[in-house]
Amino acid sequence: MTAITPTIPLDAPGKHHGFLRLPHSRNDSAWGSVMIPLTVIRGGDGPTALLTGGNHGDEYEGPLALQQLAWELEPAQVMGRVIILPAMNAPAVAAGTRVSPVDGVNMNRAFPGRADGTVTQKIADYLATVLVPAADVVLDYHSGGKTLDFLPYAAAHYLDDADQQAACVAAMRAFGAPWSMMMREIDAVGMFDTTVEQQGKVFVTTELGGGGTATAASVAIALRGARNVLRHAGILSGPVEGAAAGRMLDMPDDACFHFAPQGGLIHPLVDLGEAVAEGQPLACIWPADRTGVAPVTVHANRPGLLAARHFPGLVQTGDCLAVVAVAVD
Amino acid sequence: MTAITPTIPLDAPGKHHGFLRLPHSRNDSAWGSVMIPLTVIRGGDGPTALLTGGNHGDEYEGPLALQQLAWELEPAQVMGRVIILPAMNAPAVAAGTRVSPVDGVNMNRAFPGRADGTVTQKIADYLATVLVPAADVVLDYHSGGKTLDFLPYAAAHYLDDADQQAACVAAMRAFGAPWSMMMREIDAVGMFDTTVEQQGKVFVTTELGGGGTATAASVAIALRGARNVLRHAGILSGPVEGAAAGRMLDMPDDACFHFAPQGGLIHPLVDLGEAVAEGQPLACIWPADRTGVAPVTVHANRPGLLAARHFPGLVQTGDCLAVVAVAVD
Amino acid sequence: MTAITPTIPLDAPGKHHGFLRLPHSRNDSAWGSVMIPLTVIRGGDGPTALLTGGNHGDEYEGPLALQQLAWELEPAQVMGRVIILPAMNAPAVAAGTRVSPVDGVNMNRAFPGRADGTVTQKIADYLATVLVPAADVVLDYHSGGKTLDFLPYAAAHYLDDADQQAACVAAMRAFGAPWSMMMREIDAVGMFDTTVEQQGKVFVTTELGGGGTATAASVAIALRGARNVLRHAGILSGPVEGAAAGRMLDMPDDACFHFAPQGGLIHPLVDLGEAVAEGQPLACIWPADRTGVAPVTVHANRPGLLAARHFPGLVQTGDCLAVVAVAVD
Amino acid sequence: MTAITPTIPLDAPGKHHGFLRLPHSRNDSAWGSVMIPLTVIRGGDGPTALLTGGNHGDEYEGPLALQQLAWELEPAQVMGRVIILPAMNAPAVAAGTRVSPVDGVNMNRAFPGRADGTVTQKIADYLATVLVPAADVVLDYHSGGKTLDFLPYAAAHYLDDADQQAACVAAMRAFGAPWSMMMREIDAVGMFDTTVEQQGKVFVTTELGGGGTATAASVAIALRGARNVLRHAGILSGPVEGAAAGRMLDMPDDACFHFAPQGGLIHPLVDLGEAVAEGQPLACIWPADRTGVAPVTVHANRPGLLAARHFPGLVQTGDCLAVVAVAVD
Amino acid sequence: MTAITPTIPLDAPGKHHGFLRLPHSRNDSAWGSVMIPLTVIRGGDGPTALLTGGNHGDEYEGPLALQQLAWELEPAQVMGRVIILPAMNAPAVAAGTRVSPVDGVNMNRAFPGRADGTVTQKIADYLATVLVPAADVVLDYHSGGKTLDFLPYAAAHYLDDADQQAACVAAMRAFGAPWSMMMREIDAVGMFDTTVEQQGKVFVTTELGGGGTATAASVAIALRGARNVLRHAGILSGPVEGAAAGRMLDMPDDACFHFAPQGGLIHPLVDLGEAVAEGQPLACIWPADRTGVAPVTVHANRPGLLAARHFPGLVQTGDCLAVVAVAVD
Amino acid sequence: MTAITPTIPLDAPGKHHGFLRLPHSRNDSAWGSVMIPLTVIRGGDGPTALLTGGNHGDEYEGPLALQQLAWELEPAQVMGRVIILPAMNAPAVAAGTRVSPVDGVNMNRAFPGRADGTVTQKIADYLATVLVPAADVVLDYHSGGKTLDFLPYAAAHYLDDADQQAACVAAMRAFGAPWSMMMREIDAVGMFDTTVEQQGKVFVTTELGGGGTATAASVAIALRGARNVLRHAGILSGPVEGAAAGRMLDMPDDACFHFAPQGGLIHPLVDLGEAVAEGQPLACIWPADRTGVAPVTVHANRPGLLAARHFPGLVQTGDCLAVVAVAVD
Repeated sequence: MTAITPTIPLDAPGKHHGFLRLPHSRNDSAWGSVMIPLTVIRGGDGPTALLTGGNHGDEYEGPLALQQLAWELEPAQVMGRVIILPAMNAPAVAAGTRVSPVDGVNMNRAFPGRADGTVTQKIADYLATVLVPAADVVLDYHSGGKTLDFLPYAAAHYLDDADQQAACVAAMRAFGAPWSMMMREIDAVGMFDTTVEQQGKVFVTTELGGGGTATAASVAIALRGARNVLRHAGILSGPVEGAAAGRMLDMPDDACFHFAPQGGLIHPLVDLGEAVAEGQPLACIWPADRTGVAPVTVHANRPGLLAARHFPGLVQTGDCLAVVAVAVD
Repeated sequence: MTAITPTIPLDAPGKHHGFLRLPHSRNDSAWGSVMIPLTVIRGGDGPTALLTGGNHGDEYEGPLALQQLAWELEPAQVMGRVIILPAMNAPAVAAGTRVSPVDGVNMNRAFPGRADGTVTQKIADYLATVLVPAADVVLDYHSGGKTLDFLPYAAAHYLDDADQQAACVAAMRAFGAPWSMMMREIDAVGMFDTTVEQQGKVFVTTELGGGGTATAASVAIALRGARNVLRHAGILSGPVEGAAAGRMLDMPDDACFHFAPQGGLIHPLVDLGEAVAEGQPLACIWPADRTGVAPVTVHANRPGLLAARHFPGLVQTGDCLAVVAVAVD
Repeated sequence: MTAITPTIPLDAPGKHHGFLRLPHSRNDSAWGSVMIPLTVIRGGDGPTALLTGGNHGDEYEGPLALQQLAWELEPAQVMGRVIILPAMNAPAVAAGTRVSPVDGVNMNRAFPGRADGTVTQKIADYLATVLVPAADVVLDYHSGGKTLDFLPYAAAHYLDDADQQAACVAAMRAFGAPWSMMMREIDAVGMFDTTVEQQGKVFVTTELGGGGTATAASVAIALRGARNVLRHAGILSGPVEGAAAGRMLDMPDDACFHFAPQGGLIHPLVDLGEAVAEGQPLACIWPADRTGVAPVTVHANRPGLLAARHFPGLVQTGDCLAVVAVAVD
Repeated sequence: MTAITPTIPLDAPGKHHGFLRLPHSRNDSAWGSVMIPLTVIRGGDGPTALLTGGNHGDEYEGPLALQQLAWELEPAQVMGRVIILPAMNAPAVAAGTRVSPVDGVNMNRAFPGRADGTVTQKIADYLATVLVPAADVVLDYHSGGKTLDFLPYAAAHYLDDADQQAACVAAMRAFGAPWSMMMREIDAVGMFDTTVEQQGKVFVTTELGGGGTATAASVAIALRGARNVLRHAGILSGPVEGAAAGRMLDMPDDACFHFAPQGGLIHPLVDLGEAVAEGQPLACIWPADRTGVAPVTVHANRPGLLAARHFPGLVQTGDCLAVVAVAVD
Repeated sequence: MTAITPTIPLDAPGKHHGFLRLPHSRNDSAWGSVMIPLTVIRGGDGPTALLTGGNHGDEYEGPLALQQLAWELEPAQVMGRVIILPAMNAPAVAAGTRVSPVDGVNMNRAFPGRADGTVTQKIADYLATVLVPAADVVLDYHSGGKTLDFLPYAAAHYLDDADQQAACVAAMRAFGAPWSMMMREIDAVGMFDTTVEQQGKVFVTTELGGGGTATAASVAIALRGARNVLRHAGILSGPVEGAAAGRMLDMPDDACFHFAPQGGLIHPLVDLGEAVAEGQPLACIWPADRTGVAPVTVHANRPGLLAARHFPGLVQTGDCLAVVAVAVD
Repeated sequence: MTAITPTIPLDAPGKHHGFLRLPHSRNDSAWGSVMIPLTVIRGGDGPTALLTGGNHGDEYEGPLALQQLAWELEPAQVMGRVIILPAMNAPAVAAGTRVSPVDGVNMNRAFPGRADGTVTQKIADYLATVLVPAADVVLDYHSGGKTLDFLPYAAAHYLDDADQQAACVAAMRAFGAPWSMMMREIDAVGMFDTTVEQQGKVFVTTELGGGGTATAASVAIALRGARNVLRHAGILSGPVEGAAAGRMLDMPDDACFHFAPQGGLIHPLVDLGEAVAEGQPLACIWPADRTGVAPVTVHANRPGLLAARHFPGLVQTGDCLAVVAVAVD
């Protein structure tokens, strides 16, 4: 049984700001807690949307858009309920790190969680057993974090249930990101996505930039996307805005992914969104500690456009250096 | 007297790759060394250029352009001598950090250094007493590093000696960055810039992006800039390329700088290069750990355009959040 | 099967000082061991008492009283056997931390342990499978540690078996602390207490101060308590001393617990043992990093007296700030 | 020249809350600042009092009393000026550590500081060259911090200038702590006290408890003391309260200090304020890692009362274990 | 199912150098990998040998001999296949530590591993389920690492299957180390050895020195041993070299092992390979922090010769200080 | 003026064990001390010898021999005085590290120290101003520590004063190590050696093995050496033992030193004491993270014998890999 208790009601009318409180005994506070910020806004009858950010603690578009939404959305505007967690993995968000500093766990590989597990597993369990079952639509924000950078896209998964897939695709298109992507996860074990989809919910996720920062442009995409998904679900009134302009991306096979054959300083030769021919040099890698050594060049395995890249100037052997995707419309 | 010895001759004809070797006794190597990579290329008669990167270890345009230059430049092309240090502060470059992990010292506040000081001070001393005196022109690359992001510009300082200043400005314009900036340092004590200028040299510095990454575009600016400065100095033949298109920036007063009044998540409202009106909101700051709290908004102290910004999604009280500069041409 | 071996016999007559030795391979000693100090004193026929301290490594009354007892108690005084572990979680005691520095595990949530688990789980397993089964009476010392401070009390649990509960209560009253407390654990999973009680033993635990220190007064309470429990069990001869003066405390419901609504500097307004009216301010919280901000005041949820408090001057959101208990006699 | 700038005027009428801002370039913020909270309250004509806390970052009575004072004191009540710095060593206060986590420097051995030194030295320099010269009376709060515990006392130093000493003693007595102490520092080099006294100011300091916590009682002493000193200086109106009851302490010689002859667990045999005879056992030290070893006993070098003690349960060889002082009235 | 993929074919003719790639998402590379170096050499028909080093990351004879072998061995020399992993636990080898810095796991207690476990468990699983099943002979190198020092020996285990044991003994003797040892593991759970033997393979392991270094002599033993085992298996042609001179060691019982009764500085009185009489002093332990204390002397439990010893100058209570073995031929 | 006080008299007859006590305020003990163990043995009239070990904290022959000597030497045997500091840099010895963990300072580059400096500088100052002036003969033990390994030798320096040099050489020969070495320091600034020699004292130093361990053989050399030096000085009676067998080594020029041209795993091809021809391969360096790359071979710059080597299996670019010395007798 979960040890987490919300400090506010989850289903009362009106707007409440509070926390999920998880007791956590540690050296610097024997009777301490992990506090996960939470806002619930309930208006008239209608479906429930669960909006989450901070699954990884160094991705900022989601937390920013959700803080704004939690601040400005009023019960009178809402037909149904909006549950907002801008910092699902609160310890990671506080630290600005991908994985939780408490237990070293990557939250997006910790689902469905364990009620008697580590802090991250306990949070995952609460989401999987309490919040997701209560939701009709779930929007989980991701960006590249400190070490990856992406073209901004919303995404849906290929699912066995065609109706569910169609509903997810419709919500993804409604989000209205500049790019949309259909994804087939190779290793979906432990993902929040999988947990939500297995409960039959409509699920949208995103990658909206990266580098451990956010821009005015990227936050605007995130905020418009949340409003659009709520409009699409009938929770907010009014038409979806600006979704028509989005383009579809595809990552058809493993050849999309390019790994660093050795470590060093990355010298990029192509920027995000630029077209790439098969065999074209994508980047060189120079040693960081000596001159006079020929760089190692990484060539494109396939044609397409650069959709994601390793962000930091230093790279290690085996890091994913570049993703070449295909624009399909 | 310096403890540093170069492993290659500094003035022999031809092209040599090696190191500055600085003995450094430490727990994991009693008779270890700090090794600073070095390339010297000497052709026919002519002046000496000293090209440096990695003054701060998380700024990548300089190291990448200088690795490329050290690799491709041949003595036959050179009228004079080119001394290249792509990683001045080699321990910081290896670690990807602004300051040296060995002594915690910010190299650009360590000049003119000390022969009997810490590792960073010893490197500064060697530059100030051996390499800078041997040079006619010095180009030192900077970018924003992991925590700042800049419009790409080359810069020169206001100097007491009008002739020297004119020579520096000419070299800065020759560099050919998209932007150029005249700077008046408030606190020039300890800077490499000051040490070089006080020895009467022609000096150019840069800020070419940031975030602890580099892009194909930013490295191209850096590389073209180095070639242009060498052409301008007569060390490489051929005309300076593309310098005409650059624009001039100015930071006329302290009102350009905007500091975070509290810590939290930064929600940027303006992006780099965008025009800003006086009083316009530049960014909001939300708490990272709770919802339902009004954001703190930072407004522009003056009109202009956004020339630099805090990069990470998390900000602390007192961090410089934004710099609003003025385009002067 | 346990990897732990005692270096002394557990049941030989006389007095033996030694260790539980647990092999532990680590970077700084491939064939190292965790050594848990142990004294066994066996005299004439009689029951076995197991006395434990250092379950949390920053709580000092237990380890001090048990060192004294292990030093002074002679077989001729003992009718039965006394097994003393003043530092159950020896790595935590050596480090002065609540949880083990070896594996980060809170020993009092690690029972009944695992023979193939982490270091703390292996110690718990040895206690649960070897030492507790051999005991008739178990006394486990706790105090507040570095982050909590308590009125000094001995405690027993509400148990399903009325006879066992009565035996525990009698032993608790015999301990003779200034306060005694009946506890109903909400989350008893993993506690040493639960493991002992489930084996049908007489169990007494304590909270005897806190702050990561001990005083002459608090150690005297602890030492008298151990002697009293041994007298009560018939292992030492002579009457129980000073138990009559103790008072009963109760924590009837969740309203006893007060959590910090935000982090900062705690300004306590009530001290331990003082009476509290419902709604009375218990403490203010000031920001640690700025002036001119109104403090947040925490008011008492219920009347009673202050029985426990957060000890360090800094507090974080969600820390238990104060416990208001009720004196029931 | 100092790099510190106040964000508020230091001498304008009214009440202003702000910061001393010290630029501090570091890996996680290239253009960051250390922000030292500051309140200035200026009313009618009169002297200037400088009230400081957080010289050591783990001592809480000063910061708490000064936050309260900064919040509640109004210009209309003030004849002169009150400058309040509740967290002089702001990085240490934020971390809850004695010395600054930025440079490892103990602020109270860093005076008179250096304008071109480390962060702590720069703060010391600003105090020594700007704030202290502007003050007539200086009150600097200390307590025992996380590792010492004191009887609560205010203190003044034996000074060469008899008039200055008398003024300081009068202010100390006005403070009204339960105890007062005349101190002769053996090693006064680097202390804030010395810097203030050498400028001819009236100076009062304190030790008001310890352990890294504060109590309702100890904060009340601190707050009353500040108000009393301001009344004594004529800055607040009304009589000094409760000062008559205080008693005088003396530490006449080095025999007052008792050092741990070996490390281990401290078993205290006397508590703060209790009378001590010469040769009386003050504490035992037991090993933390084994039983069956005789404790080492520390005996009193002289008669008196226990005025200070090592606080944590673990002690190391050479730690000051106990201070036996003499009550002189 | 394993997440590990080899970057080269495991069964193609010829010689291939590459990696086992294990995706590993971490704070400094969201899409990073653990890369385990791998060479496969396949010539004519014949058996498969799996040669592994770096099971512990601070043991060097194996990685050095296997690098040499991977470099010099050509397919034309090989009848069958040689699979070489000089750094099984690649993160530990990179860090020079016994256990993996990624998860703190001792690889030689992690078998048979878990496909959904930690990084070390995933590598163990891949070995247990893919590489070991494909092998006929397995040679796994060990040395003492940074904290132990051994006489150089190859070893085989007592096994239930007499034929398998005989085959292992023959391979051990063929290895040709100066010493050979028959081992009976007390606690074989989790060892690579056990996993290999349970699959019915011929298995040889070694201890070839220690201290976290290698010598010309010890690497020569390791390299000759690998060649000899391959010759013995018929994979290389030519006779086994120098195996006749080896001597047999035995560790008949627990009395072989001598543990440190307290911590301090070790003063060895016998060196590796020297004869020892029962009761002879093996070493003294002096305190590291004071003089004038009698040393604690450790005496031999049994006669024999010193076969292994604690290497670092500092020892902790419970560390294995010395192993006295018996030469049996 | 020094803050250090000895806890025992430095010149009283008899034998005293105690400490040099240096007050050191730190986060975990506000009134703590650094305690440097000290033994003084004074018998009849005669000179004073100062014997020191633990200048670097990971070198064990000196501390072990000096503990033994401090334990066994009796005043009746001593004509004069013997001052023994087995752990000069006590914090480094406690941590087993070359440099002090308190301030990161290498003690043997900290002389003559500073009375107002860091902990290591204060200890150096005390030695330079109190203990060395009181001595006639000084013996300072060194070994290779954790990262170097040496042939065992005693050493003296070439000095300007021929008489002083002759006295030092005579004492060095008396020490009776297997090897003796005349040294000409390139960079003698900050060394204890220099401080002692500049005060005109007879000085002997050593290098007696390495790797952060000691052997029965190496401690025996150290202990015999100390006794021999004391006999040679007339402080102990009886003849010097075994000194005749020693051989002389020389390191005539910089060509003796061989540095690693790149990092990786060291494959040694020559062992300590073996003869080396000019151009002979001394060691190879393999990458630690991949196979299939040719090793880098380091060849001997000059003929001689291998006198010292890098000890750990991993090496970094610029580490001293090998020292080839010349046997001169």
